[in-house]
Amino acid sequence: MPLPDRWLSSLLIRYHGRMVLIDCGEGTQIPLKMIKWGFKTIDAILFTHYHADHIAGLPGLLLTIGNSGREEPLTLMGPPGIKKVVEGVTVISPELPYELRLIELSDLERAEACISNLDIKSIPVDHSLPCLSYCIELKRRSKFDVERAKKLGVPINYWNSLQKGLTIALEGKTVSPEMVLGEIRRGIKVSYCTDTRPTEDLVKFIKDSDLFICEGMYGNEDNLCKAVQKKHMMFSEAGLLAKQGRAKELWLTHYSPSLTKPEEYLEAVKIIFTNTIAGRDLLTTTMKYVD
Amino acid sequence: MPLPDRWLSSLLIRYHGRMVLIDCGEGTQIPLKMIKWGFKTIDAILFTHYHADHIAGLPGLLLTIGNSGREEPLTLMGPPGIKKVVEGVTVISPELPYELRLIELSDLERAEACISNLDIKSIPVDHSLPCLSYCIELKRRSKFDVERAKKLGVPINYWNSLQKGLTIALEGKTVSPEMVLGEIRRGIKVSYCTDTRPTEDLVKFIKDSDLFICEGMYGNEDNLCKAVQKKHMMFSEAGLLAKQGRAKELWLTHYSPSLTKPEEYLEAVKIIFTNTIAGRDLLTTTMKYVD
Repeated sequence: MPLPDRWLSSLLIRYHGRMVLIDCGEGTQIPLKMIKWGFKTIDAILFTHYHADHIAGLPGLLLTIGNSGREEPLTLMGPPGIKKVVEGVTVISPELPYELRLIELSDLERAEACISNLDIKSIPVDHSLPCLSYCIELKRRSKFDVERAKKLGVPINYWNSLQKGLTIALEGKTVSPEMVLGEIRRGIKVSYCTDTRPTEDLVKFIKDSDLFICEGMYGNEDNLCKAVQKKHMMFSEAGLLAKQGRAKELWLTHYSPSLTKPEEYLEAVKIIFTNTIAGRDLLTTTMKYVD
Repeated sequence: MPLPDRWLSSLLIRYHGRMVLIDCGEGTQIPLKMIKWGFKTIDAILFTHYHADHIAGLPGLLLTIGNSGREEPLTLMGPPGIKKVVEGVTVISPELPYELRLIELSDLERAEACISNLDIKSIPVDHSLPCLSYCIELKRRSKFDVERAKKLGVPINYWNSLQKGLTIALEGKTVSPEMVLGEIRRGIKVSYCTDTRPTEDLVKFIKDSDLFICEGMYGNEDNLCKAVQKKHMMFSEAGLLAKQGRAKELWLTHYSPSLTKPEEYLEAVKIIFTNTIAGRDLLTTTMKYVD
């Protein structure tokens, strides 16, 4: 439940002004308003699952996005059942000035999509009902080899097209991208993972994430049985996932309402995975390509 | 929309530990948690209408009421369409440990009900879709005339039954309530009125309210046309209703998001109706019988 001093878990990613939101519990539109990024360029809302704390804020947010002047279609994506759930909750927000496009990640197969120039992948996880974890990846173009391009006599006004992957015809000869591009460069990868027990699949899925955002339902190890029964994770389990998946950084989120001071359990997780942060409302970072 | 520093309009009435809530927008359960009255004894939720800012918080609140241990049925009451709306929004809160009883105030006729010992009345008002205003009344029993009871020889253990309206048989003679009760005493009346234009019916409906809670969408008179078009009310119109209805006290609520400092327009309303208060989050009062 949303608390007087803590909003429900949610992730907003912005790239070149376009935005993708993961999960939208009751009240999520309020911290979105507080960060002042606007609402109009939210191109997609992805749902991990349809428990109320992950979707109850949808009709209110859709209306607010409507009030922001959006007219472009908006994509809603999630596990099977999305049509029924969205039809249900939007009975109180029936008239929107834009189209809703629903993508059902059917049969919970690994799904891939590209929205706002971000690659989105999902896998099924282990919760009390169908639930997904997501990876958002920003691919990086290979470096353009100016020397090789010059050697091949490619005029400068063709360089951009070649870097975008187009093959060009040039006075009788053909120049393809691989002729002027260097090796593939590492992009940026963010993984988002609630509500689930840790799984082997997750370790591979989150591999090498620059930022791994993971639920930490309980900090105190006395609650391990509760975590297992409710299909949630301990702080320590999130830390272990981050370590196994060789993540660069871990943010904990989705605390139990009974966990009022998550920082108290942080040191114990850091023994497992040093670069751990206890997530808090409006925690924000700017990520850049490495080297 | 709910704002970072202002919740949506809602009224919670508590009498002898039982509670009735009017309207439940996104986030309403958070201020309810802040006032610390608990959730378990909320016996009914009444809806003025089904715009998202009045009902989007329902599924989350129902789950929280479930977590509080409630097993008694809970009544949901509102204008026509309640079944479809409740079925829709509760698609994300399907399993509750108590029964939901829906009362549709059909055809928007004047309706009456008694919940938690409070008399509830409604009338249709003038909004962009079917909408109701509510009166909550606490009736007061007539004073018991001890002298007359003694004169009639009624033993003290019968007094309570007589005051509750029962007729008793006593050694060959019958004693009816009116024989030992004084005149009817004034109870307590609270009226709740959003979203609507002012109407003649409302003046009669709210008559002599001890507390009249009324929308004040705009304070600045420049917005009158907008208020008329959107079927809302100005501060001044709420003040005039309070005056015409001879209310004892007026609380303004349901401000436009553009109205950040409602207090700025308060003095102008007080010229029309002196006892006006600009409603704010968690504004609370205890009401008592007069004399």
